[in-house]
Amino acid sequence: MTKAEKLRALHHGPEVLVLPNAWDCASARIFEELDFPAIATTSAGISFSLGYADGQNIPGKEMLAAVGKIARSVDVPVTADLEGGYGDIGETAAALLESGAVGLNLEDILGQGPESLASVDEQVSRIAAVRRTGVVVNARTDLYLMQIGDASTRFDRASERLKAYRDAGADCLFIPGITSEDLIARFVEALECPINILAVAGVPPIARLKELGVARVSVGSGMMRSAMGHTRRIAQQLKNSGQFDKMIEGSIPFAEADGLFK
Amino acid sequence: MTKAEKLRALHHGPEVLVLPNAWDCASARIFEELDFPAIATTSAGISFSLGYADGQNIPGKEMLAAVGKIARSVDVPVTADLEGGYGDIGETAAALLESGAVGLNLEDILGQGPESLASVDEQVSRIAAVRRTGVVVNARTDLYLMQIGDASTRFDRASERLKAYRDAGADCLFIPGITSEDLIARFVEALECPINILAVAGVPPIARLKELGVARVSVGSGMMRSAMGHTRRIAQQLKNSGQFDKMIEGSIPFAEADGLFK
Repeated sequence: MTKAEKLRALHHGPEVLVLPNAWDCASARIFEELDFPAIATTSAGISFSLGYADGQNIPGKEMLAAVGKIARSVDVPVTADLEGGYGDIGETAAALLESGAVGLNLEDILGQGPESLASVDEQVSRIAAVRRTGVVVNARTDLYLMQIGDASTRFDRASERLKAYRDAGADCLFIPGITSEDLIARFVEALECPINILAVAGVPPIARLKELGVARVSVGSGMMRSAMGHTRRIAQQLKNSGQFDKMIEGSIPFAEADGLFK
Repeated sequence: MTKAEKLRALHHGPEVLVLPNAWDCASARIFEELDFPAIATTSAGISFSLGYADGQNIPGKEMLAAVGKIARSVDVPVTADLEGGYGDIGETAAALLESGAVGLNLEDILGQGPESLASVDEQVSRIAAVRRTGVVVNARTDLYLMQIGDASTRFDRASERLKAYRDAGADCLFIPGITSEDLIARFVEALECPINILAVAGVPPIARLKELGVARVSVGSGMMRSAMGHTRRIAQQLKNSGQFDKMIEGSIPFAEADGLFK
């Protein structure tokens, strides 16, 4: 099996595909050592790491270079969060494959806000363009995350979009911003396609998501922002009290950290 | 004052110059927001982040590109850990200045191990080459960290080297690997030049280092390895129990993290 085939098959296995999102090679190697069967990237985390705000600010070439480094640092399949796709999505997907990654998330927001929502036809054609390259497509709608349009019609509008994305060849449908068990169950039933839930506060644990029929769970920038919080706490201790025991406690010893890259 | 002048002056202020070592723009921005007056980089941390083992494995160009990104993401002076200097150190220092950083650590180990220890003359000429560019030089000896040669003569050999480095124009002398108060005090007395201590287990807190006459304290890869330890713990929880509350607890909220780069 190719890596793309492996990644695709993981959406149909007996277990939920749980994907930690890496922002650099160190986080990716840590996840690989813990035996995650595949690794995602976080576009926000990679952007922060390289000094950019989230939301299509990082140049596509820089994002692809960072994703490529991550993909080449591990043996498991890597799927990339590539925001709106950075221009011609067919070209981006081909460059992604060349870099060593085999899957991507594709948002239906093309720019900075709700007004940049792609039309269904446009998004369907973009998904089809990725699918032709062989890249595994996780087609995302931002209707919930960005709270686009009237809340009372949001489920119907999202379902309509996601069914069209599915019919265009999407391997998985990603609905970040939903947390309630009821809503998750309704999407599982309506879409008849693997769905991806973003693990944020309020989302039930993996075991419950499995019962609800969820195929894939990812964490977005959650782990990166958690590591940033930890970094701020240990730096605060150093700055405010001149102590560094919190930094040392629980850190990975030098030889072990270094050994991840040998 | 230029940034280089600011960094140089911080070695002679009333307080110990405490430098957190960044490995990417996110860590650098976190440190800057905590009001550290300058920021160092960690060559090991940057190497891990980009998928390389420590010890002159990363290509110099990649290291300089990463340091430049960090330097341009903050307003405070940035001093870089550049291992053995990646070839012609004068050229490396000039490229470093061009990238926006204003200081560097220079090791007297040129390759992978103790056998690559530079002669005193060679190291003196390398330090002078950096000094001519205007870059602030933190001249490091690896005699303690690598435990080179007979322990009973190590203090004398290190002192002889460091005095020569000082006379060649080093702004600060870096002796990683020493932890005892007695040894630190002996170096402060012998060298008559700002000295840099690496904060590792066994090193006294900043207040005590100040009493001992230490001018500068840095953490090397300590914060990066601490963040890696945290990342491993939250990823372990996700993998082993399917829970993600440890990830969420204490993480920097999305809007706040994103705001660091706007």
